[in-house]
Amino acid sequence: MISVVLLGAGNVASHLYRAFKESANIDVLQWYSRSIDKISSYANDTHITDHLNDLKQADIYLLAVSDDAISKLSEKLPFDNRLVAHCSGSASIHDLDKKHQRAVFYPLQSFSKDADLTFSEIPICIEVLEKPNLKILQELASSLHCKTYKINTEQRQTLHLSAVFVNNFVNQLYRVAHEISDAKSINFDILKPLILETARKVQYMSPYMAQTGPAKRNDKKTIKRHLKLLENEQHKAIYELLTASIKKTHGQR
Amino acid sequence: MISVVLLGAGNVASHLYRAFKESANIDVLQWYSRSIDKISSYANDTHITDHLNDLKQADIYLLAVSDDAISKLSEKLPFDNRLVAHCSGSASIHDLDKKHQRAVFYPLQSFSKDADLTFSEIPICIEVLEKPNLKILQELASSLHCKTYKINTEQRQTLHLSAVFVNNFVNQLYRVAHEISDAKSINFDILKPLILETARKVQYMSPYMAQTGPAKRNDKKTIKRHLKLLENEQHKAIYELLTASIKKTHGQR
Ligand SMILES: NC(=O)c1ccc[n+]([C@@H]2O[C@H](COP(=O)([O-])OP(=O)(O)OC[C@H]3O[C@@H](n4cnc5c(N)ncnc54)[C@H](OP(=O)(O)O)[C@@H]3O)[C@@H](O)[C@H]2O)c1
Ligand SMILES: NC(=O)c1ccc[n+]([C@@H]2O[C@H](COP(=O)([O-])OP(=O)(O)OC[C@H]3O[C@@H](n4cnc5c(N)ncnc54)[C@H](OP(=O)(O)O)[C@@H]3O)[C@@H](O)[C@H]2O)c1
Repeated sequence: MISVVLLGAGNVASHLYRAFKESANIDVLQWYSRSIDKISSYANDTHITDHLNDLKQADIYLLAVSDDAISKLSEKLPFDNRLVAHCSGSASIHDLDKKHQRAVFYPLQSFSKDADLTFSEIPICIEVLEKPNLKILQELASSLHCKTYKINTEQRQTLHLSAVFVNNFVNQLYRVAHEISDAKSINFDILKPLILETARKVQYMSPYMAQTGPAKRNDKKTIKRHLKLLENEQHKAIYELLTASIKKTHGQR
Repeated sequence: MISVVLLGAGNVASHLYRAFKESANIDVLQWYSRSIDKISSYANDTHITDHLNDLKQADIYLLAVSDDAISKLSEKLPFDNRLVAHCSGSASIHDLDKKHQRAVFYPLQSFSKDADLTFSEIPICIEVLEKPNLKILQELASSLHCKTYKINTEQRQTLHLSAVFVNNFVNQLYRVAHEISDAKSINFDILKPLILETARKVQYMSPYMAQTGPAKRNDKKTIKRHLKLLENEQHKAIYELLTASIKKTHGQR
């Protein structure tokens, strides 16, 4: 049984809390939020508090707070030499005050409060400064049935950057397609199966192998017609840049 | 019962053939391929031929051949005034020889021969010149349990362009992430759940609502650090352009 004190009440903390409660191997000793109203509805399920001085003794203190708050909050924790981990993809492990045994427990997924997630599908990237803590964090993750990956700071920051490409930027391409099709009164629903299939394909095939289309074939006629169809200059620029990128990857010029 | 003669033996034709054979309401009278060896293994299941002069009389002739071949092949068909449809997202309905009753039966999905697809999830975009043919093509699609959409040429070409964004360009962003993470010996598998979740999210939420991340928040510190991490000039350009696009969409500057 691993005892956890959870700090923060945002997207990540809410999902973690639910997942922790479902695990027989994890005891959420206490939930801290500086705004107590955010967690007051859980008062019957766990100990809640908005006072750092009331924090109980636990195996792990998990800081699921905004990146900017990690440093100050870890400093204000009224104890030392205990295991304290943050959940950020980009904050350094050294943002945690050095009086603690420092670690990172980074769930690589996009969390929003309303969206349902299968927690067991989320990869957990773990980093520790004191080696024995690796096992505790791995056990915490495996109690959630998650796969774990030992990742150093540079790798984690590169992962976070890669996540921006496959999540934020990909989503923006969906948005551009939405704009383009809306302008011609086309139902965006028509594109949804293709969106899913594109993501599914790279689950078992490399993106290199999965590529198709006019840019890869260097089909100049189609590319020219597409550029003519695009009215928005920024959409045109995106089309040109990604076409050039595909050509470079696949050895066209 | 709808009788079909299928022409072509590539990605789309192969998937269509399998889907047609599973439907109780569709009779594949004949399968034509100019290279007979591509379909000879089906000789026991249907009539196969590589001779246009042998084509049987059917309700629909479906041309699932390369875009460039549509015009010439339709011209060479040794009959007239029958229903002939092509499957292309970009070819005009007028590419079909005008001696035929012309139509388009465009399945909006990315087909490759090996990938398994649930055909019933594929939207079929239909265009006809002679109105009564609309019903036949809708019946053909609904015999495959597919949703149909009536789409004109301009809309279809815009859809094809949108498909390039959500399929080819999105896949290239996966590729860029693969390159970036590979360079730091990070297992690409870690990103796969996020890739799927990003596609799943827009199945029930608009891409606008689904957006998160540093560009949307205008988190200048993170954006700057990411740009510093990127070593490849083209990756940097993609990062900058898509960040600008997200900012524009979400009213940041
Ligand atoms: N969202 C994701 O997709 C995702 C994915 C992986 C990792 N992460 C990481 O997980 C952590 C939390 O992210 P999130 O998305 O859950 O953020 P969030 O929804 O914005 O929630 C942030 C939480 O931090 C609290 N907080 C902010 N400043 C604080 C301070 N000075 N002292 C105490 N609490 C403070 C907030 O409290 P108030 O409500 O009182 O302001 C809120 O409970 C971040 O490190 C983030 O990088 C996020
Ligand atoms: N692939 C997709 O994801 C997709 C999605 C939606 C729509 N489409 C459309 O579906 C159609 C077929 O695409 P595909 O991906 O199946 O292409 P493909 O795999 O390249 O197959 C093309 C087929 O056309 C045949 N062909 C080419 N030139 C011909 C000619 N002059 N006479 C007779 N047959 C000829 C080829 O025969 P040989 O094998 O003898 O060369 C081959 O069987 C195209 O209009 C395409 O735009 C494709």
